[in-house]
Amino acid sequence: MAGRAVVPGHVTGFFSVHRADDPATTGSTGAGIAIADGVTVTVEQADTRTVELNGTAATVDPVETVLDAFGTPVRVEIETALPVGAGFGVSGAATLGTAMATATVLDEPRSEQTLIELAHTAEVKAHTGLGDVVAQARGGVPIRLAPGAAGALDGIPATGRIEYLALGDLSTAQVLTDDTTRLSAAGTAALDRLRETPTLDTLFDAAREFAIEADLLTPAVREAITAVEAAGGTAMMSMLGETVIARGTGLSDAGYEPTVTGIDHAGARLTGESGDF
Amino acid sequence: MAGRAVVPGHVTGFFSVHRADDPATTGSTGAGIAIADGVTVTVEQADTRTVELNGTAATVDPVETVLDAFGTPVRVEIETALPVGAGFGVSGAATLGTAMATATVLDEPRSEQTLIELAHTAEVKAHTGLGDVVAQARGGVPIRLAPGAAGALDGIPATGRIEYLALGDLSTAQVLTDDTTRLSAAGTAALDRLRETPTLDTLFDAAREFAIEADLLTPAVREAITAVEAAGGTAMMSMLGETVIARGTGLSDAGYEPTVTGIDHAGARLTGESGDF
Repeated sequence: MAGRAVVPGHVTGFFSVHRADDPATTGSTGAGIAIADGVTVTVEQADTRTVELNGTAATVDPVETVLDAFGTPVRVEIETALPVGAGFGVSGAATLGTAMATATVLDEPRSEQTLIELAHTAEVKAHTGLGDVVAQARGGVPIRLAPGAAGALDGIPATGRIEYLALGDLSTAQVLTDDTTRLSAAGTAALDRLRETPTLDTLFDAAREFAIEADLLTPAVREAITAVEAAGGTAMMSMLGETVIARGTGLSDAGYEPTVTGIDHAGARLTGESGDF
Repeated sequence: MAGRAVVPGHVTGFFSVHRADDPATTGSTGAGIAIADGVTVTVEQADTRTVELNGTAATVDPVETVLDAFGTPVRVEIETALPVGAGFGVSGAATLGTAMATATVLDEPRSEQTLIELAHTAEVKAHTGLGDVVAQARGGVPIRLAPGAAGALDGIPATGRIEYLALGDLSTAQVLTDDTTRLSAAGTAALDRLRETPTLDTLFDAAREFAIEADLLTPAVREAITAVEAAGGTAMMSMLGETVIARGTGLSDAGYEPTVTGIDHAGARLTGESGDF
């Protein structure tokens, strides 16, 4: 018997860093989009622990932390078409998916909130993420109003096509260990703006402003966003990766060849061998 | 242009009633299952307000309350294959879907939490529901830990086939205006049990016990649940309707001809004319 979980990717538009003594209450506020392209994690009982990412043995620190919490050895297969280290929350998705699928296969029932806290804490300790896990658990277009595994959430009602183009990677750990004062001030201003007018348009506008204020916009991303806008579209940079996200056919209209996905409304969920039923 | 929202049905396993002066904080705690069979609400601008349920003019009190909050007249089409008044949360789904689709078509952006509060409050005022709206917004197998539009939620990680059989209807308004002391005590005991072992099996067990303790189990439902158990399956009664819910092929295995659905992981969402993308 195998346990299997599907977890959406998550692109962050803007964020503020909130540190506390407890990793469960450490995290970020901000907003982003859960996308249909995500991560599938399949877990089976095994004699020794193994973790594979797209068929190759891999060490994903927060996944190891989650497996430590269960103790019993399992074989973990993480599969994703998303680029790693490019701002899609692959580590958060792999970590939450591992927690959900492992609890299932070992018949050690835990509530969703308990699994979210386990995965979020592992991400914070590994410096791989501060808010992806809670957003990926929820799905949709999550607004993280308060930091941490149990922080208050809201969302923007939205649907539609999303395009993305990964141009390179940025180190999440590097940005998150730098001084984040200016970044967090810009993130708080963006959050206030989004709460006042909760639309996808505001999210994209606020995210572009945040990327400039926080000094994270790279020349390649700036060029692509400008090209999308020149073609009449709307685009933003994903935090933290050198990745451009556009609404509708924004990147296609500007002459790029992006990957096409949509908003994932479901968030992280278990799935059967042959789908949901 | 039309706005369209899809909202899952919700079958409640057990609940406790919590009344407050403010309808937004009045509600129920408990647990249930969001099911893939649900309600689609399509809203268009119009010269006069009209509401249709499956093609026939209808008055749904909490839907009217939501439309009053917007003011501008719209044409609302509510479509569902679910039976009305049989414990599937059709009124909650219609109300939340109307709020989401109307905000979209009128371009009056509101956050998901604001729309949930609007719909929940309308349901409480109309005595048509106390907890369906928040569960339907979330999707999955929601545990309502605290009452009201902003009450804390958790969930049971689960997937799989669900079968249902509607045998008749019960009046939600009648049960909710009766003395609910005994019912609420039984609901609190069931919730404690589910939090200790958060699995679908516990939900079904606790729901069966609740139905007996709260004196809501009807002879027809009792007979069907007993037949499912005799065939090796698991079933419960949906609150509040004369409806039997089974996991997997429980009702089929017992010789019934149930409707087949699954767990809806997404919860309420906007949808485009041609699906999500």
